[in-house]
Amino acid sequence: MTVGDLGEFGVVNRITGRLPQGAAVMLGPGDDAAVIGASDGRVVVSTDVLIERRHFRRDWSSGYDVGRKAAAQNLSDVAAMGAVPTAVVVGLGIPADLPLAWLDDLTDGFRDECAVVGASVAGGDVTKCDLVVIGVTALGDLRGRAPVKRSGARPGQVVAVAGRLGYAAAGWALLESGVPIGPVLEEAVAAHRRPAPPYAMGPEAAELGASAMLDVSDGLLQDLGHIAEASGVRVELDPRAFTVGEPVAVAAKELGADPLEWVLTGGEDHALAAVFPPDVRLPPSWQVVGRVVEGEGVVVHGREIGRRGWDHFR
Amino acid sequence: MTVGDLGEFGVVNRITGRLPQGAAVMLGPGDDAAVIGASDGRVVVSTDVLIERRHFRRDWSSGYDVGRKAAAQNLSDVAAMGAVPTAVVVGLGIPADLPLAWLDDLTDGFRDECAVVGASVAGGDVTKCDLVVIGVTALGDLRGRAPVKRSGARPGQVVAVAGRLGYAAAGWALLESGVPIGPVLEEAVAAHRRPAPPYAMGPEAAELGASAMLDVSDGLLQDLGHIAEASGVRVELDPRAFTVGEPVAVAAKELGADPLEWVLTGGEDHALAAVFPPDVRLPPSWQVVGRVVEGEGVVVHGREIGRRGWDHFR
Repeated sequence: MTVGDLGEFGVVNRITGRLPQGAAVMLGPGDDAAVIGASDGRVVVSTDVLIERRHFRRDWSSGYDVGRKAAAQNLSDVAAMGAVPTAVVVGLGIPADLPLAWLDDLTDGFRDECAVVGASVAGGDVTKCDLVVIGVTALGDLRGRAPVKRSGARPGQVVAVAGRLGYAAAGWALLESGVPIGPVLEEAVAAHRRPAPPYAMGPEAAELGASAMLDVSDGLLQDLGHIAEASGVRVELDPRAFTVGEPVAVAAKELGADPLEWVLTGGEDHALAAVFPPDVRLPPSWQVVGRVVEGEGVVVHGREIGRRGWDHFR
Repeated sequence: MTVGDLGEFGVVNRITGRLPQGAAVMLGPGDDAAVIGASDGRVVVSTDVLIERRHFRRDWSSGYDVGRKAAAQNLSDVAAMGAVPTAVVVGLGIPADLPLAWLDDLTDGFRDECAVVGASVAGGDVTKCDLVVIGVTALGDLRGRAPVKRSGARPGQVVAVAGRLGYAAAGWALLESGVPIGPVLEEAVAAHRRPAPPYAMGPEAAELGASAMLDVSDGLLQDLGHIAEASGVRVELDPRAFTVGEPVAVAAKELGADPLEWVLTGGEDHALAAVFPPDVRLPPSWQVVGRVVEGEGVVVHGREIGRRGWDHFR
């Protein structure tokens, strides 16, 4: 059975029937708009658009994985402000011949990724398109805290990361190479299909006094470049400070690649990178990888790695 | 010059450079997420996705018109809850060979339509896509009022509309027919290219005691069907109560069409339809066109017009 068999309203009912609504949702799907709680009189909002064959491939990722990934990258943006995600709304373009099972999987992926942070899919829109197109907007609640912006880094502070780095890049390289995927490598491939952002570390960093933060979506060097630029500082990274995950190391060996390059320039893991006061005591979820100094740009000590990453028009 | 010449970050800077930020925007473009005021501890949110060749054609509509239309249809959804729009975020998929001038026009269209209601484009995302794809999410502030839902219609109440009906449908029919467009008809064509929703009538209706409301996006009969279904009532319309606009009447004569059919089933004008208590005193911006009775569905007295409208998978 396909989406076209069901028609627009059948599709909408099918989707909303699979979506429980959480406490922050004061009015859920089915009206002109949803109403979401914004307890401190502000709402954090982030949006992304994902296009089939550019951001995902239906032959590489299930509908479920695409849903989790699409939700994750926006929920992660909200967490990177130091906020707790509350709700997601989704604009969907889908072909009439899309199997209904794929749409169900996509819906369930959105639902389950939102559930990780206690958020809900509170509304959306469905239309026909030759490609699968997914517009995702996530909302969040700062709970009285100031937003942690990109512009708050100051010389003398330390740079730390939380979450995985290089996993998704290794997974993508493995899929593209066509090599057989063993048990250890499977973790990298899974990371490409479905990131696992360290959501709770966002509000945690805000509580710990982070003065700048972002989520690593285009590669650590490029994204830290945004903090350096917005703050008018230089970020110096110590390449020895990074732990290279086992799947990344094994994949690099298998493919003859440099694992640190994946760690430093691979996007899509949605790790968090934050800048803290020099005397901060960080829990083990955060790993100090560098420091902020006067100047500009991002440098990696002893390595010739420029600011590289993902440009969506390259 | 094209979008591809500028690259992702050049495009983002180009767009954000054209966008002033209003009072509700506490943190605008340039970070992981924006922060928008939600003065009463709630936020209204609505999202849509527009696909080139399905919702607009670049040979029929300028970038400016597409921007105004894309913003309008979401701002109108917010107004239809009785809320005042505060901000819009936009996820954009665009081809690398898209002329920069078209993107500038699109941006200006978004900016100007938001300005009509005092809202701002507070954030977004840009990526490459073979088609122009626009995901729009609008936020709004209820300012302490209850949201006006679709489910609040009760027998004995009156049904009224504000704004234009049938104009966009007439304009579309004129464009498709290829007939020469004279001065009167130009207004219908302009309405297809760029709706002019009666935004202020949304909060006004809430203040006047509207118990159900929606914006007419798929056709009045179909959309009132949503109110009938959500409220468990029947809506009876009096066809003589509708004023047919001059451009609609002239276009119908020109094309041998039934103007009332455009009024009752044409979408995209984003008029507001609301249900009020029987004793309400409505200002002239609202026109009473029917009443709520027990039963189900939508009927038009003395006419054989079924529930028709736009199905996005038909």
